[in-house]
Amino acid sequence: MKMTQTFIKTLREAPKDEIAQNGALLTRAGYIHKELAGVYDFLPLGLRVIEKIKSIIREELNAIGGQEVLLSSLQNPELWEKTGRFSDQEVDIWFKTEVVGGGTLGLAPTHEEPITNLLKTYISSYKDLPLSVYQFQTKFRNEKRAKSGILRGREFLMKDMYSFHATEEDLDKYYAEVEKAYARIFERIGLTETYKTFASGGIFSKYSHEYQTFLPVGEDTVYYNADKSVVLNKEVLEPEVLEDLGVKREELAETTAAEVGNIFKLKFKYSEPLGLKFIDENNAQKNVYMGCYGIGVSRVMGVIAEKFADEKGLVWPEAVAPFKVYLVGIGEAGTAKAREFYAEHEDEILFDDRDARPGEKFADSELIGLPLRVVISDRTLAEGVAEVTERKTGETHKVALDKLVEIL
Amino acid sequence: MKMTQTFIKTLREAPKDEIAQNGALLTRAGYIHKELAGVYDFLPLGLRVIEKIKSIIREELNAIGGQEVLLSSLQNPELWEKTGRFSDQEVDIWFKTEVVGGGTLGLAPTHEEPITNLLKTYISSYKDLPLSVYQFQTKFRNEKRAKSGILRGREFLMKDMYSFHATEEDLDKYYAEVEKAYARIFERIGLTETYKTFASGGIFSKYSHEYQTFLPVGEDTVYYNADKSVVLNKEVLEPEVLEDLGVKREELAETTAAEVGNIFKLKFKYSEPLGLKFIDENNAQKNVYMGCYGIGVSRVMGVIAEKFADEKGLVWPEAVAPFKVYLVGIGEAGTAKAREFYAEHEDEILFDDRDARPGEKFADSELIGLPLRVVISDRTLAEGVAEVTERKTGETHKVALDKLVEIL
Repeated sequence: MKMTQTFIKTLREAPKDEIAQNGALLTRAGYIHKELAGVYDFLPLGLRVIEKIKSIIREELNAIGGQEVLLSSLQNPELWEKTGRFSDQEVDIWFKTEVVGGGTLGLAPTHEEPITNLLKTYISSYKDLPLSVYQFQTKFRNEKRAKSGILRGREFLMKDMYSFHATEEDLDKYYAEVEKAYARIFERIGLTETYKTFASGGIFSKYSHEYQTFLPVGEDTVYYNADKSVVLNKEVLEPEVLEDLGVKREELAETTAAEVGNIFKLKFKYSEPLGLKFIDENNAQKNVYMGCYGIGVSRVMGVIAEKFADEKGLVWPEAVAPFKVYLVGIGEAGTAKAREFYAEHEDEILFDDRDARPGEKFADSELIGLPLRVVISDRTLAEGVAEVTERKTGETHKVALDKLVEIL
Repeated sequence: MKMTQTFIKTLREAPKDEIAQNGALLTRAGYIHKELAGVYDFLPLGLRVIEKIKSIIREELNAIGGQEVLLSSLQNPELWEKTGRFSDQEVDIWFKTEVVGGGTLGLAPTHEEPITNLLKTYISSYKDLPLSVYQFQTKFRNEKRAKSGILRGREFLMKDMYSFHATEEDLDKYYAEVEKAYARIFERIGLTETYKTFASGGIFSKYSHEYQTFLPVGEDTVYYNADKSVVLNKEVLEPEVLEDLGVKREELAETTAAEVGNIFKLKFKYSEPLGLKFIDENNAQKNVYMGCYGIGVSRVMGVIAEKFADEKGLVWPEAVAPFKVYLVGIGEAGTAKAREFYAEHEDEILFDDRDARPGEKFADSELIGLPLRVVISDRTLAEGVAEVTERKTGETHKVALDKLVEIL
């Protein structure tokens, strides 16, 4: 992408009310634009990051049999009344809206009720199970405070998956598969220091699991032992839980973390009130076992921004960077050569072809945070090389022009 | 995709309140699920159609310099009050919602106001122009009646593009480019009989253009001459317009049509009240010229379903079919061979591997409407062939097994 052909432009200042680092940096670097507290637009660079995160998640979920769907945002209260969750006393983050001609609808903050109801049409026998269904969907939550940039939104992008099983054993087996898929997802995304964390369960499960990324500005407090093999949310820091996990209080250190995902054995929590049943091999009617599995896609983007940024700007892991290379040409011949390199590899390069000083381009390359900056100048050209600088380390190497393609 | 690994299942009946053919067929064939009047979920097959339509649109818009973004659904009334469009008297299809802690937000039925406001941050000089920005976004419209399946939704997927120019000439030039891109899009999608149609303009333009697909259940009435070089909406069937278009009333025939897209020269309609200005070469401050360009993505899917369906079910054009081939194996050896063919080309095949009678599979293949049905049976295997049936014509050809890959 050529910078002169986009409206990407770095800003000197973020809006005054943008107090979160992720929001301020992503705004200044041209990835997002704030509409309201907790409500953001994704600009071309930001949307590319979101799509790269989605692609990784999609690949890993398809690999464990997930089927992608897209459920509606507008919600029928009737379904949610069956589980008692349409009430503002029960779920206090609903956005509700009135329909012309009468009636109230909700804007989905999550989708357990509609997916459970939908599958009543498709599940009747043990032969229809197991099933796993996921979506990438905009969720709406009427948060009182939304001051954490894209870490906590009133409108945000989430991946939510729901699985359906004939037996508890099958749910347990799939749950373990999802755990492995989640480990691969966070590793591939490059979100280091993300740990499966014990958290409180519900009526049907002793624990749920969160995926917590250690982060100074994270809203959660977690406790962990030295090798991070046990991480637990403060909410379950109790003698009984410590005993379950085989760890002593004094072996645990405290830190803050941001929840980027969670997985939950729902069992009959939704299938029972909504009537999702199946006929087993012995012709007996039974409730369907369910699990649910979330990843906050836009929050993951915000956590990455927070976690890896330095005083110069953003630092993207390669797998989710909008482009791999920030390309700068200096001088007439250097710029011509840069243009040539760009033309051959448009998809992986953000070419700063603006009429601006090199210093300005260098500063912007650091703010935007692509993994590599490549500079081709008249001087480097005379040596037959380009200068390649790693954003993360700041280290610069000379790479022969005829080998430059290998960095892509 | 294997049918036993999905929850795709055809239904004998659509919901009783589903009176539109597109809604009934798409529901029975397992593409969509109705949540509420005008509110649908997209199931795996349906989402694949949507994604294929999006891909074609994206390619053509990127080719004319469109930059993809994603704007928020929740809307700040302040912006819309500047154009007078937050008022329910002015725009009567708003869904509005209350924020915890006070204040009203709207759910975007369209995005002129936020995109115009957003670009105030990015456009200041003639050097920043022209610009073209688009998104695929869920729109919300509080429709009193929503009984047309996915032809008219309360929640629906739209592609909306906005362009920004320094001069009227430049807007005109880009508008003509979009016209060409739209012609390519509808041709590639396979939506025949879609015509650029003169419709009423606004304050700043004499006409806008709609893209109307001739369709018996279409909500619009249009008039056209024999070669379809002039098509106009009933709303502009006036002597002055006929004179403009150089056509006589008696040369025009009437038909019904569904609007699948529209393009509009907005000029200063939004840039003026929202204050989107630029400095020209002579240091004078001027309003930015704007155009906007929509395509109803989910509506296009519904129009295709309506337009090509026959008494047996859906008939998808190849470019947007969820899979190219519906594969059936009959007999032990035939099924083994089918399984083998599937394993080599999973991406393009829906393999009906259910334990069901061939007649049931054939009926479902017709309802689901993929372009080709391939049958490999013990009998065809003995001949070294597969039977390939075109959904559209019903014609069956024998294709040698070693050449079967060529149909993909």
